Amino acid sequence: MRSSGTEFGLNHLPYGVFSTKGDQQGHRLGVAIGDQIADLASLASAGLLDDPTGALSSSTLNRFMTEGPSRWAEVRAQLTALLADTSKLGAHLVAQSSARMHLAWDVADYVDFYSSLDHATNVGKMFRPDADALLPNWKHLPVGYHGRAGTVVVSGTDIVRPSGQRKGPNDPMPVFGASARLDIEAEVGFVVGVPSQQGSPVPTTAFADHVFGVVLVNDWSARDIQAWEYQPLGPFLGKSFATSVSAWVTPLAALAGARCSPPAQDPAVLPYLVDADPWSLDLRLSVELNGEEVSAPPFSTMYWTPGQQLAHMTINGASLRTGDLFASGTVSGPTKHERGSFLELSWGGTEPLTFADGSTRTFLLDGDQITISALAQTANGEPIHLGPVSGVIQSTY
Amino acid sequence: MRSSGTEFGLNHLPYGVFSTKGDQQGHRLGVAIGDQIADLASLASAGLLDDPTGALSSSTLNRFMTEGPSRWAEVRAQLTALLADTSKLGAHLVAQSSARMHLAWDVADYVDFYSSLDHATNVGKMFRPDADALLPNWKHLPVGYHGRAGTVVVSGTDIVRPSGQRKGPNDPMPVFGASARLDIEAEVGFVVGVPSQQGSPVPTTAFADHVFGVVLVNDWSARDIQAWEYQPLGPFLGKSFATSVSAWVTPLAALAGARCSPPAQDPAVLPYLVDADPWSLDLRLSVELNGEEVSAPPFSTMYWTPGQQLAHMTINGASLRTGDLFASGTVSGPTKHERGSFLELSWGGTEPLTFADGSTRTFLLDGDQITISALAQTANGEPIHLGPVSGVIQSTY
Repeated sequence: MRSSGTEFGLNHLPYGVFSTKGDQQGHRLGVAIGDQIADLASLASAGLLDDPTGALSSSTLNRFMTEGPSRWAEVRAQLTALLADTSKLGAHLVAQSSARMHLAWDVADYVDFYSSLDHATNVGKMFRPDADALLPNWKHLPVGYHGRAGTVVVSGTDIVRPSGQRKGPNDPMPVFGASARLDIEAEVGFVVGVPSQQGSPVPTTAFADHVFGVVLVNDWSARDIQAWEYQPLGPFLGKSFATSVSAWVTPLAALAGARCSPPAQDPAVLPYLVDADPWSLDLRLSVELNGEEVSAPPFSTMYWTPGQQLAHMTINGASLRTGDLFASGTVSGPTKHERGSFLELSWGGTEPLTFADGSTRTFLLDGDQITISALAQTANGEPIHLGPVSGVIQSTY
Repeated sequence: MRSSGTEFGLNHLPYGVFSTKGDQQGHRLGVAIGDQIADLASLASAGLLDDPTGALSSSTLNRFMTEGPSRWAEVRAQLTALLADTSKLGAHLVAQSSARMHLAWDVADYVDFYSSLDHATNVGKMFRPDADALLPNWKHLPVGYHGRAGTVVVSGTDIVRPSGQRKGPNDPMPVFGASARLDIEAEVGFVVGVPSQQGSPVPTTAFADHVFGVVLVNDWSARDIQAWEYQPLGPFLGKSFATSVSAWVTPLAALAGARCSPPAQDPAVLPYLVDADPWSLDLRLSVELNGEEVSAPPFSTMYWTPGQQLAHMTINGASLRTGDLFASGTVSGPTKHERGSFLELSWGGTEPLTFADGSTRTFLLDGDQITISALAQTANGEPIHLGPVSGVIQSTY
């Protein structure tokens, strides 16, 4: 599977923020087409794209995302017509190879769920071998927590190995040092465009009124730091050093043809989590270590759906803001090659993976590059390539 | 203890954001003096206050907070001289009684710690009666987690009772409904001004290079929602519906005279948590329900100090942003009247509190007003009144 971002068809049209060396225009919005980027401010100022509010000429997606689904559809329709023939758009196109990509939006709050049955079961078996793998709440609500929004970085950003406290079961006292169990979590993230009011839950049916698009997420995790710190208030420093997201944000509309039925849920969920028309996405992720695929997690197996996650996240009256990111949690399928973390792939470090060059891995080494991409199977045509989200591990400070 | 904010002396000079009805000036920065607010943009435009960057004329504290400690000291010195005699400043003063207060800054990330030994011990005894009250990590690191920044609200904002899932130990299945165990957490919060770089920890000694000021915090908590959801990833919807902060941000400099020694720590902490000159604050909080004091938690008893919290939060390389808020966790002292939550005051709902009007409470009722204020005892003079942070419970949606 490809790990570069150069094959964007007319059925995709993802948004990003880019700059080019040597010009004075700074960060600006673009839409990927083929191996080019269409410069939205440039198209708007030439009168080729309507931009009545100036939102398409700003330096992040936030203002445009706030404008809502009818405006998103309008711009998508205009771009679809415009980019069908790029031969006359030369002045408004920039080669992806000569652009630098930036974080496409200002992240407001970042919530991470834990919605894969296989992932939660694998982790439960490893961490609580003598008990039920799933905790009692897991099938009643999509378990989640807040992560650190300020350390969400764009694909391509180097990841500095974190240091911190850890304490193995046989250590008498905690020790300090670089994480020795640095891991990934391959996830799918959803970006909120339209805010909601504090005190007003957002039902499953209002998903498309609020959510703008989809990114791939790598929720880097230091398992040794996490294991020592996480009780009773959950993950903190084991996660907060960095979370990578793809530079390209796929509009929800592009994935309409990739909707599929989610797995059945048993026991039945409470009414606020019932979706009259439940949907998941037929997305197959690909995780590569230094260019070699280690896993192909299937998003369609996720137990809790994006609509249920949004409804749950707001059922207490918590408001949404433009730029909120909520991610699925590690995507893992039932087979070994579908696991979305090295924790699971190496079964807690006990089963090293072997690579073509003969090297082995349990967790990540300095210099390792991880790239996550995804293929959306659409019912009616060309597949859509999401991502990539990529990062290289640098040695600790 | 007072619960209005009308006694601000020249030794305090807290910052806030206010507006007044009927004028066109919108949100603007002010500093409290007596029962007045000095309008900073007005002082600057009259040439009475230096504002070379325009930061003092913006609509939140963020730009000024980014400018750093030498600039903060300069402005404080100018204001101290200027406000010593307010008799000639009439045009630049607004009565607090005619102003509306707003959230003083854009909150970036919100981290909540769990740093009171008495609070953690009380909660541990209630939730794990057959085990050690403190978990093994508690005395080795300041346990904390990320909360929802988007639902931080200013004092005076009504709090809508959240609904959600809960499941008592004898319920066969979870049920949905309004929280029946709505609680407070009386805390002290620290607001970050100067950002740091991702990958570069901030040592205890750099506290004053980054932290701008102090607010009082009420981390509203739905104990029944929290108890059912919180394993294994920590608090989520039980907390994320609302967190209230005081309208007035006390500059760190105002509390220099209120520093005191923190409790001794045993066992010894790892080197990155050692502070060569450890300090806490001699702050006595006061929690009032409908005007009647229910608790007077002493901040000076907190086991982990603000400097240690900051060092811990960044030791994994997580960066700080302007506007980050980190709060102490519930402040509870060793005696019953020093407990900072109704969970502890009513011992899990088993020991109702009785009020002067004969009514009783375990947790909060609709219509209840909670007000938290604090008195800082300074070594050399007048005490400083922090807060208040106040909110009234509204019935659920």
